[in-house]
Amino acid sequence: MTNTLTPEFDLPIVGDLHDAPLAAALQHKIDRKTVPHGALGRLAALAQRLGLILGTTEPRLTQPQLVVFAADHGVAARGVSAYPSDVTWQMVGNFVAGGAAVSVLARQHGIAQTVVDCGVRHDFEPAPGLLVRKIGPGTADFSQGPAMSAAQCADALRNGIELVKQLPGNALLLGEMGIGNTSPASCLAARLGGIDVGEVTGAGTGLDSAGIARKTAVLREALAANAGAADPLAVLAALGGFEIATMVGSVLQASAERRVIVVDGFIASSAVLVACRLAPPVLQRCVFAHRSDERGHARLLQLLGAEPLLDMGLRVGEGSGAALAWPLLESACRILNEMASFESAGVSDKG
Amino acid sequence: MTNTLTPEFDLPIVGDLHDAPLAAALQHKIDRKTVPHGALGRLAALAQRLGLILGTTEPRLTQPQLVVFAADHGVAARGVSAYPSDVTWQMVGNFVAGGAAVSVLARQHGIAQTVVDCGVRHDFEPAPGLLVRKIGPGTADFSQGPAMSAAQCADALRNGIELVKQLPGNALLLGEMGIGNTSPASCLAARLGGIDVGEVTGAGTGLDSAGIARKTAVLREALAANAGAADPLAVLAALGGFEIATMVGSVLQASAERRVIVVDGFIASSAVLVACRLAPPVLQRCVFAHRSDERGHARLLQLLGAEPLLDMGLRVGEGSGAALAWPLLESACRILNEMASFESAGVSDKG
Repeated sequence: MTNTLTPEFDLPIVGDLHDAPLAAALQHKIDRKTVPHGALGRLAALAQRLGLILGTTEPRLTQPQLVVFAADHGVAARGVSAYPSDVTWQMVGNFVAGGAAVSVLARQHGIAQTVVDCGVRHDFEPAPGLLVRKIGPGTADFSQGPAMSAAQCADALRNGIELVKQLPGNALLLGEMGIGNTSPASCLAARLGGIDVGEVTGAGTGLDSAGIARKTAVLREALAANAGAADPLAVLAALGGFEIATMVGSVLQASAERRVIVVDGFIASSAVLVACRLAPPVLQRCVFAHRSDERGHARLLQLLGAEPLLDMGLRVGEGSGAALAWPLLESACRILNEMASFESAGVSDKG
Repeated sequence: MTNTLTPEFDLPIVGDLHDAPLAAALQHKIDRKTVPHGALGRLAALAQRLGLILGTTEPRLTQPQLVVFAADHGVAARGVSAYPSDVTWQMVGNFVAGGAAVSVLARQHGIAQTVVDCGVRHDFEPAPGLLVRKIGPGTADFSQGPAMSAAQCADALRNGIELVKQLPGNALLLGEMGIGNTSPASCLAARLGGIDVGEVTGAGTGLDSAGIARKTAVLREALAANAGAADPLAVLAALGGFEIATMVGSVLQASAERRVIVVDGFIASSAVLVACRLAPPVLQRCVFAHRSDERGHARLLQLLGAEPLLDMGLRVGEGSGAALAWPLLESACRILNEMASFESAGVSDKG
């Protein structure tokens, strides 16, 4: 792949997972389970995918890691969010204290939570479960020019790559926090997807329709101010955020390591869009947890050809949808590993 | 309520759950959680419902019980199923051995599984987790007359009532097994819902379109042969099954005790339809786990005004969808009980 930003380091190489014999072995195993043929629906498709990612007909998920990538956004000063930027650092405190939605859900399912300060406008005291990988105190206002420099983007990618290398287990759940970050997500989807930004701009944390109209106008300015950015890495630097760029690095590294990647909502999906434009086989490692209620998410999922597991009208972010869907992945593995076959159970198959 | 079948016993009394102060207290608690207002989507609605059923702003689910109601159906001899009737008793063995889909999923989530022989055409050896509450060796062929007598229907209801009284905990997950049992479910939906049976007749365990056409013709015969049955209990006796009638008794008793009822697919939903025609507040206790791929289920859910949690294309039955959705109920409780408020976390609310 072309690396326009950083001649001094290579992005992780993400190989193709096509393995016809394994796919056939998984399908045969599923077809012999004691249910009517095809009755497992999308649980069977999920089991197939997990088997292919982990390279086995007996996939087992180990030590799942939920990473909350957090950063601030210069464009928040333009009033694109219903909440003040201070909420970003306050919510980091809430994650670390275990009181946020995603913290509660991760605890329920035995998922380890790590919060990464990728560029929050606040200096944190050291705390367990908090990594400081700060590129700067929030991005520049991308309605006036690039959100970050090429060097900053490369640093964020490198941070994301390195932090995944340190994480145990074989599954990465993507979370994020950053007041204003639906704005870069919308711009990334618009530019890389060739979609009008109005189609993928929504309420975020709760704008009314006038607020959405103002936000859309600001995002049109941002796209115009960064009209020259075209290849994925240039687009990421111009229209992304520090947490999104760090997440892209993590997604690429997790993909290279054949971890299962559980994608949360709109912002996480925008990072996956960037990553799979850099390395298309990334998508083979992704399980899309849910369709959020944020306006652009359904369109972005469609662009990615993704069929999410849940559709519960969530607009929380944080990785909460990924954590909520996690037991479904566990179920798919258990169905493969623990369920009887027609033969083992002595049950008559269809004539 | 009128009890046309059984003057000698009364059906459980299911009271209304309207409690405006509790509903307001739950809504206030949800609104102060550290997410954008309304961002919890249907997870908030689920938390509300669980709080109202259990009568508290701190709902806790305890010792969940999944009951697989099993029976055979005389109409199976008419070729309405893709599988032979022997699969019913063989699958009972599979449940008891822990190898069925629902057994695997119940084990994953710490849900106790009980299998009830409500009328399987087989004599079982005693086994842990198997209750024998047999009304007879399968129902009569309801294409020729009533599936069961009024006395049999009353016995099945009573069995369902009594068995719930013996179960611990505050949640009942509905499961079933019975080759041919989409046929009574379709007839119950058609007669009680005033729907043409063709609209709610599907592939069951895997009929092709010619098979579905033959099944629909048999079900039209059944409805004609039982044209006189109009009130819910008479309809249940004429067009139900032993496992469905037993389940109706259990749903009524669980409702009277304010247990959370987790409804699985098409057959369980048909039992809930009967129960809520007998006692409308039953619906207030129900959480609909999923929309199955069985043709009539979407229509039946619409009739019940139900919005299920999952939509994964399952056609398994057994209670597998209920078990699969269970962690979402746990999540809703934990969000209420463990998540921080804007005040407790020191997070700024929307201006």
